[in-house]
Amino acid sequence: MDFERKIKYYHDMINKYLSEVFQEKDCLQKSVYDAMNYSVQAGGKRIRPVLALAVCDMLGGDINDAMRIAVSIECIHTYSLIHDDLPCMDNDDLRRGMPTCHKKFGEATALLAGDGLLTFAFEHLADLKGYKCCSPGAVLNIISDIAKSAGCAGMIGGQVVDLENEGSADITEKILTYMHNRKTGALIRTSVLASAIAAGADDRQKKALTQFADALGLAFQIQDDILDCIGDEKTLGKPIGSDAENEKTTYVTLLGLKAAMGKSKNLTNQAVSALEGFGDKAEFLRELADYLLTRNK
Amino acid sequence: MDFERKIKYYHDMINKYLSEVFQEKDCLQKSVYDAMNYSVQAGGKRIRPVLALAVCDMLGGDINDAMRIAVSIECIHTYSLIHDDLPCMDNDDLRRGMPTCHKKFGEATALLAGDGLLTFAFEHLADLKGYKCCSPGAVLNIISDIAKSAGCAGMIGGQVVDLENEGSADITEKILTYMHNRKTGALIRTSVLASAIAAGADDRQKKALTQFADALGLAFQIQDDILDCIGDEKTLGKPIGSDAENEKTTYVTLLGLKAAMGKSKNLTNQAVSALEGFGDKAEFLRELADYLLTRNK
Repeated sequence: MDFERKIKYYHDMINKYLSEVFQEKDCLQKSVYDAMNYSVQAGGKRIRPVLALAVCDMLGGDINDAMRIAVSIECIHTYSLIHDDLPCMDNDDLRRGMPTCHKKFGEATALLAGDGLLTFAFEHLADLKGYKCCSPGAVLNIISDIAKSAGCAGMIGGQVVDLENEGSADITEKILTYMHNRKTGALIRTSVLASAIAAGADDRQKKALTQFADALGLAFQIQDDILDCIGDEKTLGKPIGSDAENEKTTYVTLLGLKAAMGKSKNLTNQAVSALEGFGDKAEFLRELADYLLTRNK
Repeated sequence: MDFERKIKYYHDMINKYLSEVFQEKDCLQKSVYDAMNYSVQAGGKRIRPVLALAVCDMLGGDINDAMRIAVSIECIHTYSLIHDDLPCMDNDDLRRGMPTCHKKFGEATALLAGDGLLTFAFEHLADLKGYKCCSPGAVLNIISDIAKSAGCAGMIGGQVVDLENEGSADITEKILTYMHNRKTGALIRTSVLASAIAAGADDRQKKALTQFADALGLAFQIQDDILDCIGDEKTLGKPIGSDAENEKTTYVTLLGLKAAMGKSKNLTNQAVSALEGFGDKAEFLRELADYLLTRNK
């Protein structure tokens, strides 16, 4: 299967699962399920679940088990977007061209929908009957890795650093990288690593995949900064130049456009190199790294 | 050990553990750990962790394993209070006589501190090395039960129903009970049940303890409603009559004070009766049920 068909195949699987997962209709708290459904089905690039499924396929793991991990991580990602959009955080009215969760359902319901998605992720992950091949011990390792990556040492920690440095002119590349490695990088890393644990990867494989994910995650973020500077508004679906307007420190403002593009390219090469030991089986992940580097949205 | 000494013994153990659990100091996201620490150390009755420890002692389980469960559930309870106090929810400035988390640290940090406590609870629960006696399978059952109880079918669901019925004059006793069984009841039930799973309780024991917890949880809530009506402001540390002022439907407004007191007493008796099969070992839990019924704060 070529790259375009394969990524569509993964997207379709993920979207089908996500459209079926919150089907509680006959209860007094229906509104929160509607809000959760609205946000998980709002689309997006699905990078994290695609990574989890692709790593599973590469390692010969059970796709059903990887899907449980993939969807749980996408729920965590979606909760983080809902909370991030709230008035006390970024105060965004639109996401992917649609009203944000709190604009559509009200702030209180959006807050609870975010809490609900985060809690659901762990309920879903802990359901041993939902796995075909993972042992209870492996499932615990998966939950541990995902919780660490989503928590204060990971994603939440990155959001805090972002918040604390808002409007600061003193952000160094070191702080920016510390922030992005957590805010975006941690969940990308666990998408790869939790799926590798499920597929029974050995330590050498896990180390290589961690290097792949870390380089890919940072390249992904730098590319975001570049697109905010030179992207096409129509293709992106959002106004460009917002980082500069908000005086936000990015890789582009710190390094300049040319050096940022070089860094993103170098990191993508590092990500691809980390996959060497997996041979031909890593073809899709290599193409995915290039796809993310050359994306225009 | 008599009841007063025993409950103090449990409180001291819980408070010591909670004072040591968030000790990250040398990181860029220190503020979120400070906010989490502030809220978990703000005190409170610690009903949920005390229940978890007492059930463990009654069943002869490992107290270290029960403590991990107890503290994780208290973190989930604390996160729910932080989010509940936010301006988009109850907009409370004070809790237990102290500034609420968002008043002290700002809304964004409080939101993230709540998210952090919820995520930490699952990280803490999934750490197999932290248990002495629980098998990986038992730990997964514990995480499942806690996540279900904290999620949209449980605590969050109760909050949603509360929110949706705010200011409504049509709340029936059925809806009120549906709401409280989830908003307060679910976390009380899982404090008892998760600890019972850890201690290796059989199905008959789990059924009896579920009956105990369900009756206790509802009695606890009705007593809260009664205290808001006839409590002493100084002892409670908050103004009384706020439910009536906010035209909130409570068991007192629905049933009248006398019938509400009768219902709370009946439920406490039911809770105590459910413990019959445990004989003398249930003494502390029986006394705890009476203590909660006759509390004045």
